[in-house]
Amino acid sequence: MAVELQVPENILPVKGIRLAAISAGIYARSRNDLSIIEIPAGSRVSAVFTSNQFCAAPVILAKKHLKNNSPRYLLINAGNANAGTGDEGIKNAHNSCSALAEIGSCKVEEVLPFSTGVIGENLPIEKINNKLPQLFEKLSDDNWLSVAESIMTTDTVPKIISKTFLIDEKKVTITGIAKGAGMIQPNMATMLSFIATDANISKELIDQALIDSVNRSFNRITVDGDMSTNDACVLIATGQANNSEIGSEDVEEFRQFFNALNEVFIALAQAIVRDGEGATKFVEIEVSGGETQKDCLSVAYSIANSPLVKTALTASDPNWGRILASVGNAGVKNMNIEKVSICLGDVCIVENGRRAATYTEQAGKDVFLKDEIKIIVNLGVGKAEEKIWTTDLSYEYIKINAEYRT
Amino acid sequence: MAVELQVPENILPVKGIRLAAISAGIYARSRNDLSIIEIPAGSRVSAVFTSNQFCAAPVILAKKHLKNNSPRYLLINAGNANAGTGDEGIKNAHNSCSALAEIGSCKVEEVLPFSTGVIGENLPIEKINNKLPQLFEKLSDDNWLSVAESIMTTDTVPKIISKTFLIDEKKVTITGIAKGAGMIQPNMATMLSFIATDANISKELIDQALIDSVNRSFNRITVDGDMSTNDACVLIATGQANNSEIGSEDVEEFRQFFNALNEVFIALAQAIVRDGEGATKFVEIEVSGGETQKDCLSVAYSIANSPLVKTALTASDPNWGRILASVGNAGVKNMNIEKVSICLGDVCIVENGRRAATYTEQAGKDVFLKDEIKIIVNLGVGKAEEKIWTTDLSYEYIKINAEYRT
Repeated sequence: MAVELQVPENILPVKGIRLAAISAGIYARSRNDLSIIEIPAGSRVSAVFTSNQFCAAPVILAKKHLKNNSPRYLLINAGNANAGTGDEGIKNAHNSCSALAEIGSCKVEEVLPFSTGVIGENLPIEKINNKLPQLFEKLSDDNWLSVAESIMTTDTVPKIISKTFLIDEKKVTITGIAKGAGMIQPNMATMLSFIATDANISKELIDQALIDSVNRSFNRITVDGDMSTNDACVLIATGQANNSEIGSEDVEEFRQFFNALNEVFIALAQAIVRDGEGATKFVEIEVSGGETQKDCLSVAYSIANSPLVKTALTASDPNWGRILASVGNAGVKNMNIEKVSICLGDVCIVENGRRAATYTEQAGKDVFLKDEIKIIVNLGVGKAEEKIWTTDLSYEYIKINAEYRT
Repeated sequence: MAVELQVPENILPVKGIRLAAISAGIYARSRNDLSIIEIPAGSRVSAVFTSNQFCAAPVILAKKHLKNNSPRYLLINAGNANAGTGDEGIKNAHNSCSALAEIGSCKVEEVLPFSTGVIGENLPIEKINNKLPQLFEKLSDDNWLSVAESIMTTDTVPKIISKTFLIDEKKVTITGIAKGAGMIQPNMATMLSFIATDANISKELIDQALIDSVNRSFNRITVDGDMSTNDACVLIATGQANNSEIGSEDVEEFRQFFNALNEVFIALAQAIVRDGEGATKFVEIEVSGGETQKDCLSVAYSIANSPLVKTALTASDPNWGRILASVGNAGVKNMNIEKVSICLGDVCIVENGRRAATYTEQAGKDVFLKDEIKIIVNLGVGKAEEKIWTTDLSYEYIKINAEYRT
């Protein structure tokens, strides 16, 4: 029931990257659930992970491996999160990395493990290791969609996008995939995303680009306010587009690269929201006029995570009082209620902290009946602004989450 | 669909308090929706209000009236929250207080207004004022249940309790009522509660007793994480039990009084949770072993407000990984995951941060199938502890909140 979400036609390989997916019997029903992404030597790789303090075993191990090594392989499984599994979990994750390192002729520290699925069950390590040789044989540069499909859990549509642009008269490609449909909250909840580019760019800038892009995309979405133990986002630059390396002095080139990268990140983040569990609406919440960006974000998330606002969205009922209450509920100090205005798209519903004189119930209803809705709040006290994306809360969400696993 | 909630048989008048309810046509369907509580001269009265920054007009006015006056009348309506109504809202609330003051022969500042219901529509002031004379005529000391019913909105059961005990060899009575079923979150969300006692107790101690009791009851419950614009809790001590006044030196008498009062507050707060919108489970979450009470509360609310935990409860599915993830998601600094244990009632599910060796799926399922569930977390690092109460998140919640108002 995704909101206006389709797989794009043009999915482009990224020079140097090979990948493959296979069915290893980890996921509840038979489908591809194990995949590898191969990264050429000399690439620059950056990664960020969940801030949930119960990190899953693969997250702990991936962080450790990244410390003194540049990864050559990403090993990803769906169906089992290898979280809450203690020492046994670490051992299993290490074991699978070790098996792949042997086949790929690299160090075990050059393999990063990623898992998504049910928490608290041991990784079926034999099933994984048995399939690795066959999976390795399948590596190819045109398997992006197949891998995007293999990392899905409650997702209904694979999330994938490609983009090309010129830098230095060289064609540069970015292709990214992501998974995640519930347990989505800022700071990257049950979300995996792998984005690769053939741009030649310094390690320092690829680190910066990843953090800035995540903060404008995956850290600006919420489906249900929950955050997982397994989230990770990896950005790979193979450098094989053969542009001259973008370094810290190349301000204009970095801007071009960053803008394109940012489009990819935002498209993937929005795809996660559009495919949010039970989503029937895609909602953009823009909060401006705050004293700080933090204030704007607090207000935006207070609206986005309010079950009362979410159920009003489900019902296409412009119950704007609930939006107003959630603004007042955001814990922003020095809020001046008499300066607050709230619009639904073009329709102004609250002016100076109270119902706008021009507002009619029908005008609000017309906006709320649409699939895509903008809620625009102006706090009227400063210049900061923020934008986030979310969904409604439907019967289907309950159904999916009450029945998942059982 | 309230969880084990009934109206008790013994509802006792409180000496000095008279009250009445009537139908004024404010609520969507015909039923009692307007009520008065009359407070005798010489009473000590204390009140706390919502921390939502969009306070409703009656909250603004009630706070103002309380500054230099001791209230003689509480005027309460259901069906219209008089919130988001700007100056007109204040004028209307003042107008209704003024009309009641005239009938009751007191100052307008001695009347406190309370409203609950739909936000953003003007109070039907004529309907209210027209009914006041007739309502005033009905005042009697045995109308507690009738008033408890008249303040309900999405509540399915009126919330009311009485308690008697001896102080100073005098029989003291406490009777309290409350309303609230959704938009319930700490710091008192869409909740009204009026508690009266005939105890003779100093103003200073009645203020302290209210704050301490609210912090152990109404500020320890959550249904959906939302907080309303209208919450208020009023505690009245008429002094007519004729015990000698309890003052700050009467430590033992205050302890007796406070314990009894606290039982009343907790029963009312738990009643709100038991009648939570769509509730099928009543859940107590106890978090101990924290460095600070704040840490314990953060963990407790992170579990209680997690839609994934709530839907697992609805499904009676002991998906303990979701509980573990929400503990890790609480934002507690210095959490030592290897010291965390989690039990469902008597069944230990997580030990030292991972699945307990003794845990079986069936044992967890047996606990989750019950109507009343205890989730017990020990953080293993300190001595602080906290306890809160919550419900699950069911289809029925969505139905109620998607269809309310439409």
